[in-house]
Amino acid sequence: MPDGYTAPIDDYAFLYRDAFGVDLVARATDGAMTADDAIDVLGAAGEFAAEVLAPLDQPGDRVGAQLVDGQTRLPDGFAEAYEALVGAGWITAEAPESAGGDGLPTVVHNGLGEIWNGSNMAFALCWMLTSGAIHALDAVASPELRETFLAPMVEGRWTGTMNLTEPQAGTDLGAIRTMATPNDDGSWSITGQKIFITWGDHDVAENIVHLVLARTPDAPEGAKGISLFVVPKFLVADDGGVGERNGVQTVSLEHKLGIHGSPTCVLAYEDATGYLAGDLHGGLAGMFVMMNSARAGMGLQATGVSDRAYQRAREYAATRLQGPVLDRPAGATIAEHPDVRRLLLSMSSEIFAMRAMGVLVGDLFDRAETDGTLKLAEFFVPIFKGWTTEESLRITSDAIQVHGGSGFIEETGVAQHYRDARIMPIYEGTTAIQSNDLIGRKVIRDGGETASALFAQIDETVTTLRGLDDGVATRTADRLARALEAARQATEALLGFADSPRDAYAVGVPYLMLLGTLAGGWLHGLAVVAVIADGSTDAAGADRLVSADFYGAHHLSRVHGLAETVTAGEIV
Amino acid sequence: MPDGYTAPIDDYAFLYRDAFGVDLVARATDGAMTADDAIDVLGAAGEFAAEVLAPLDQPGDRVGAQLVDGQTRLPDGFAEAYEALVGAGWITAEAPESAGGDGLPTVVHNGLGEIWNGSNMAFALCWMLTSGAIHALDAVASPELRETFLAPMVEGRWTGTMNLTEPQAGTDLGAIRTMATPNDDGSWSITGQKIFITWGDHDVAENIVHLVLARTPDAPEGAKGISLFVVPKFLVADDGGVGERNGVQTVSLEHKLGIHGSPTCVLAYEDATGYLAGDLHGGLAGMFVMMNSARAGMGLQATGVSDRAYQRAREYAATRLQGPVLDRPAGATIAEHPDVRRLLLSMSSEIFAMRAMGVLVGDLFDRAETDGTLKLAEFFVPIFKGWTTEESLRITSDAIQVHGGSGFIEETGVAQHYRDARIMPIYEGTTAIQSNDLIGRKVIRDGGETASALFAQIDETVTTLRGLDDGVATRTADRLARALEAARQATEALLGFADSPRDAYAVGVPYLMLLGTLAGGWLHGLAVVAVIADGSTDAAGADRLVSADFYGAHHLSRVHGLAETVTAGEIV
Repeated sequence: MPDGYTAPIDDYAFLYRDAFGVDLVARATDGAMTADDAIDVLGAAGEFAAEVLAPLDQPGDRVGAQLVDGQTRLPDGFAEAYEALVGAGWITAEAPESAGGDGLPTVVHNGLGEIWNGSNMAFALCWMLTSGAIHALDAVASPELRETFLAPMVEGRWTGTMNLTEPQAGTDLGAIRTMATPNDDGSWSITGQKIFITWGDHDVAENIVHLVLARTPDAPEGAKGISLFVVPKFLVADDGGVGERNGVQTVSLEHKLGIHGSPTCVLAYEDATGYLAGDLHGGLAGMFVMMNSARAGMGLQATGVSDRAYQRAREYAATRLQGPVLDRPAGATIAEHPDVRRLLLSMSSEIFAMRAMGVLVGDLFDRAETDGTLKLAEFFVPIFKGWTTEESLRITSDAIQVHGGSGFIEETGVAQHYRDARIMPIYEGTTAIQSNDLIGRKVIRDGGETASALFAQIDETVTTLRGLDDGVATRTADRLARALEAARQATEALLGFADSPRDAYAVGVPYLMLLGTLAGGWLHGLAVVAVIADGSTDAAGADRLVSADFYGAHHLSRVHGLAETVTAGEIV
Repeated sequence: MPDGYTAPIDDYAFLYRDAFGVDLVARATDGAMTADDAIDVLGAAGEFAAEVLAPLDQPGDRVGAQLVDGQTRLPDGFAEAYEALVGAGWITAEAPESAGGDGLPTVVHNGLGEIWNGSNMAFALCWMLTSGAIHALDAVASPELRETFLAPMVEGRWTGTMNLTEPQAGTDLGAIRTMATPNDDGSWSITGQKIFITWGDHDVAENIVHLVLARTPDAPEGAKGISLFVVPKFLVADDGGVGERNGVQTVSLEHKLGIHGSPTCVLAYEDATGYLAGDLHGGLAGMFVMMNSARAGMGLQATGVSDRAYQRAREYAATRLQGPVLDRPAGATIAEHPDVRRLLLSMSSEIFAMRAMGVLVGDLFDRAETDGTLKLAEFFVPIFKGWTTEESLRITSDAIQVHGGSGFIEETGVAQHYRDARIMPIYEGTTAIQSNDLIGRKVIRDGGETASALFAQIDETVTTLRGLDDGVATRTADRLARALEAARQATEALLGFADSPRDAYAVGVPYLMLLGTLAGGWLHGLAVVAVIADGSTDAAGADRLVSADFYGAHHLSRVHGLAETVTAGEIV
């Protein structure tokens, strides 16, 4: 079953219930919901994803979104799947409570995010963007805008987009040229061209709410002169329904390396009617709400796509016969070959770490107000986005490698994930942008305090592991302790670059990768503690120990080279 | 100029003349040819590649090879380009002297190989395969077969292929089922299906010489019962020209992730007339001649494709403006951003190491008979194939990253190299197969002797570097000495696994990557010695020192993690 997808429910059950030594869901909801309830939710989502979304993934890639007479047409089945998704209540469930959603804790949202993306990344982008738009309007919109635009999005009737990029303004949003001029009735008239607009046009819902960054007359130069506007594809009729077409046209769809099922649009705004959302010239604030939600979402996307690729590789390896395998009996599958096993363990041990980080980040946001964990949560956002998306490139590549020559044939299906994944370290801020955020705002500016607090927590785990009198626990403690020492040296070096910013920014990405890799080792360490504390000797627990041991020997060991790289600063 | 390609002549001039402290070309040819002559040859090839081959690379990818009424049609321009290639004498020039070629030394062949692949990998596969077939027939064919089939290939009139893989027989050639039964006239009748046949059918030359592995009646089981047959697409007429169609049909072309311009065929043989080449049941010997030539060729392919992707990234970064850049004046390009500079240096420093390894391997083969360097040359073949092709994945990926969102758009062109490159660590033996060859035959079986000899040479370079009283030289010496220590420990660990083969084969790929990375650092060390010995302070020399310093901090540093991985053995 090449299009099969199985949601990783067991891992989430372990993470929600056991890995952190507490029921995370119950803690986040004051007992209103438990890990068991959350697993039921994920189970239902997993079934929906397997039955409705996963089978559309490969056909969506082959056909792709098409522009026909100015209207974007999505592949067969996408509209029905979207309708089913809305009908099953998933869109509303995912919205924040303040906007009329179900108020699920972030740890559960993050589990769902992985499942949607693992089953169909191109499709999931639709409501990842809508969800970001919902968060942004929820944060900055006036009551009128909330009623007119937010409510239909939360109901799933309309979708949302973010319109930032222009040909000359990618990472540099200050260079935006799209203009908004005031109309007499309080609305604005928007003119300009936007590129790389994900799900910027489609035929799966009746209207699209574009959030558009634009400049106003006499606005200050650069980023401080940018405002945020709501610009619907169709104007809203007096009854709140869909009215006349607004002045926004789809100029073209991009021909991309991957995510063919997700329409990436060039949109032309010509005297389109828009509405100011939030403060004049305060547009970036609203957009950053959306962006932060999207950045954490990228980590979930990277986890989901990586796991999908891994599931294909595991399935192929478990059925393909090819030659005798050393000490194994005749008829052994290629999964028994030492190097195929290495590739599979490399993928799965890293995916577990990514998944655990998604849960950790969700938990830190859930406890932001009660336990003061916001700073650490925000510390992890660029790491989660940057590290997981970079690692997803190797994981999807390794999944091809397991398939041998068949992996290079498109019909096999695994190559799609390799192509799809390649955008993840670029959009929602490249890895370099994530590392700038990490080292600039979150390490150097706070004098390394948050990093130190994290390292202290890892130290505690090392101590706990050392007390367990177990081979894997001891090895994990040793590796983690050495990795921690390397991370501390790298952090010290980075802080020493405070007055020579080029030295810091030249090694920002290696530093981000170091922290991501270290955190992955820590999360495996917590898993080892949980498994051994549990005392059970079942196969699942044994697999978790092998996974942690493998991660330590093959992945965590990479921090030493990265620390050397960071310490060197810029090479001139 | 997105399709532009510039052959890396300056690097080859440095490598042939300076880097190894001797004119390699003169040494290999006893002075019959010098490095200057070789550079003239590469310059002419570079011009041909830039003018004829490179402009066909992207169109070839977009259109791809097509099967029309049972005949494979290549993209427009391919046939003319092939004709021009033959007309310019390049096919004949590349053949071994014993087969009627120009007798160029291997170091020069290797430079040419990079240029052909860098300008158009899909097209270069045509004569990479032909060249392999020429080598195989040159080694095993009877005088009749040489005259009938080898001569037209050396002239460029006919092309060659290698037919190994069947659906159930990929890496495991012993599982081949294609049958050859003897005819009365001494020829054989071949029946079976072969898959993944590169350039298995096309319309750029008048005939195709398939080298086919098949089983004969009553042959021993497994690999020892395989024989090699010459099976032409068209039978040869009495005058030596093209006669009637032989019993081989193109069933289909694969729809691949990359190298769309290279036809990958499923071929059906039905009572096709074939001729035994070499000994009955000795088919693998002839095929390994072809394979070894092809494996070294893969390293050149990886170098060429990586460099092409790098050239695109460098060009884009040098022209794209995006935001202010720290300390740089307004109007700085993104090449001035510390992380873009990091990506570019990461690519270029690794490509230099790959290129230098291609020259080193060529030189070791050139001196095999005179200086007894065959063992070390063969030691390097799996490293060169495995390490460069794996690294090409990150390099072509980084080239996309430099382009930001534009890199994900197919029209930009850089994504093609990322897609093309993905087959390289798979075909001609996966990286795992390379590592099996390395650790099994070339490390464990010889008790680590060849590895020790290599390490001793690197030690000498460390000593030389230490004596130079230069900052980069000292840092390079320190890093190289520590990396060497890690490599020695890893080798010792590996030798300790001689009696637990799963431990060895489970870390074979990390060990191969360790040696490749170490060798890259050594070759940079030789470059540092040459630059400083030269005493010149020109920009090219300064760039070489920065490149070596960067490689040491960002790439060579990875050996420490790899050594830890190797030492761990299989994780169970």
